[in-house]
Amino acid sequence: MDEKFFQSLIRRSHEEPFGKMIGLEVVEVGLGFARIRMHASSRLSNIFGTVHGGAIFSLVDEAFQLACNSHGVMAVALNVSITYVSAPGEDALLEASAEEIYRTNRTASYACRVTEPLSGKLIATAQALAYRTKKSLVAEE
Amino acid sequence: MDEKFFQSLIRRSHEEPFGKMIGLEVVEVGLGFARIRMHASSRLSNIFGTVHGGAIFSLVDEAFQLACNSHGVMAVALNVSITYVSAPGEDALLEASAEEIYRTNRTASYACRVTEPLSGKLIATAQALAYRTKKSLVAEE
Amino acid sequence: MDEKFFQSLIRRSHEEPFGKMIGLEVVEVGLGFARIRMHASSRLSNIFGTVHGGAIFSLVDEAFQLACNSHGVMAVALNVSITYVSAPGEDALLEASAEEIYRTNRTASYACRVTEPLSGKLIATAQALAYRTKKSLVAEE
Amino acid sequence: MDEKFFQSLIRRSHEEPFGKMIGLEVVEVGLGFARIRMHASSRLSNIFGTVHGGAIFSLVDEAFQLACNSHGVMAVALNVSITYVSAPGEDALLEASAEEIYRTNRTASYACRVTEPLSGKLIATAQALAYRTKKSLVAEE
Repeated sequence: MDEKFFQSLIRRSHEEPFGKMIGLEVVEVGLGFARIRMHASSRLSNIFGTVHGGAIFSLVDEAFQLACNSHGVMAVALNVSITYVSAPGEDALLEASAEEIYRTNRTASYACRVTEPLSGKLIATAQALAYRTKKSLVAEE
Repeated sequence: MDEKFFQSLIRRSHEEPFGKMIGLEVVEVGLGFARIRMHASSRLSNIFGTVHGGAIFSLVDEAFQLACNSHGVMAVALNVSITYVSAPGEDALLEASAEEIYRTNRTASYACRVTEPLSGKLIATAQALAYRTKKSLVAEE
Repeated sequence: MDEKFFQSLIRRSHEEPFGKMIGLEVVEVGLGFARIRMHASSRLSNIFGTVHGGAIFSLVDEAFQLACNSHGVMAVALNVSITYVSAPGEDALLEASAEEIYRTNRTASYACRVTEPLSGKLIATAQALAYRTKKSLVAEE
Repeated sequence: MDEKFFQSLIRRSHEEPFGKMIGLEVVEVGLGFARIRMHASSRLSNIFGTVHGGAIFSLVDEAFQLACNSHGVMAVALNVSITYVSAPGEDALLEASAEEIYRTNRTASYACRVTEPLSGKLIATAQALAYRTKKSLVAEE
């Protein structure tokens, strides 16, 4: 796939209703790779006043989604195992990355991590498994 | 714990910023158990126009969060492994349940599932592991 | 599938080199379901003198393997997430069960647990995901 | 910890009954790190004649066990999520590595992978979570 296709994926991500609602922003998409950012604002808080586990997961999931679709073939999530390491600081900038570990015709797996990129503090790690359909994705105008 | 404490947990969940934003509603909280609902509205869509994996996870995570805190001792997520089974129908009502499998002084594990309760269709299953702190939770007025 | 096919699966399991080496014994195979037993003998010990995590996993994996192949279509493991709950007693009898949660043409998922069946003590729980090939299995004479 | 302690861990691993039975051999132990080898011999076969998923997991688990105990504080497995990528070749040499991703006073997580070291072929990947007790380990004479 080429840069034009990656730009199309980024556009689709930025127009996605759920991503807009929680404040996701794509930093980079490459072959089998993606990085996404989000601010740990109080809008994302859980009952204890820290960032909701679902918000942190969603950041990971978006990176995973773009990485596994970066080959131009539609892929869907089969399983994600997330381990929470530490709670983000108040209003911290968070970044998730997803990096391809292997890819066959039918499945692919990604190593994901969430950090506070300014301090390098690790927030969560995840292992994500995608099912690869036969459907082609094309760059949208 | 008693009914008053469960009602306090439900109130806190309904006041939680992230839960309000994505539309979570508690159905029931009991000892080691919780059920939560959410509508699969288009506001929760991903780049393919179906419900974002992060939104489905968040529904599970809220049920897990209430179930593991239902004993009156603060518990935090260590690991969640989610398996996606089928995409929800458009605008479908979704329900997540979390049910305690075991509990020691330091950890506890929950079997979770997401269904469309009207049809019984299975959307996702998850296994969730909590770390139990020593901190007591009290019913808030 | 019928009883003859289940008996054939049980025979193959009992002839399997790895299962014989660690002492696996099939209790029951049904559609989407299996139960296996093993003694927690000192032959299976780790560096701390308790049963090796790999031996407990292998017991689960055999139950999963038979359950996901019980439909007569060859299935292979994609992902297994195991949570260890408590160490088995010395020389305890252990039993693993695997039960189908869902099944599509391409994947299927199983809820697994390991207990000491005599006391009901829970040893481990697992969630297992299989990829279903198109290859038929037939009862071997 | 020092080299003497690592050598003591290696000795304990080589004397471990389960590891001896399935043919595990330690290559290296360092702080938060370990590598183990095993031959994919026919003794480890499952009902399909390929290496049993439990044997591959056991190789990973031994690397995890040594890596998480390398700090001189007893650690036990809480959760391991393994993804199977490809079946090993007949009689292939297999190597598992476990590498620490983070470590707090109560938990630690490890990224694990199994390869055929001669060809670099990836066999499996895993994410492993340990609970760290307060108990000290000492080098045994």
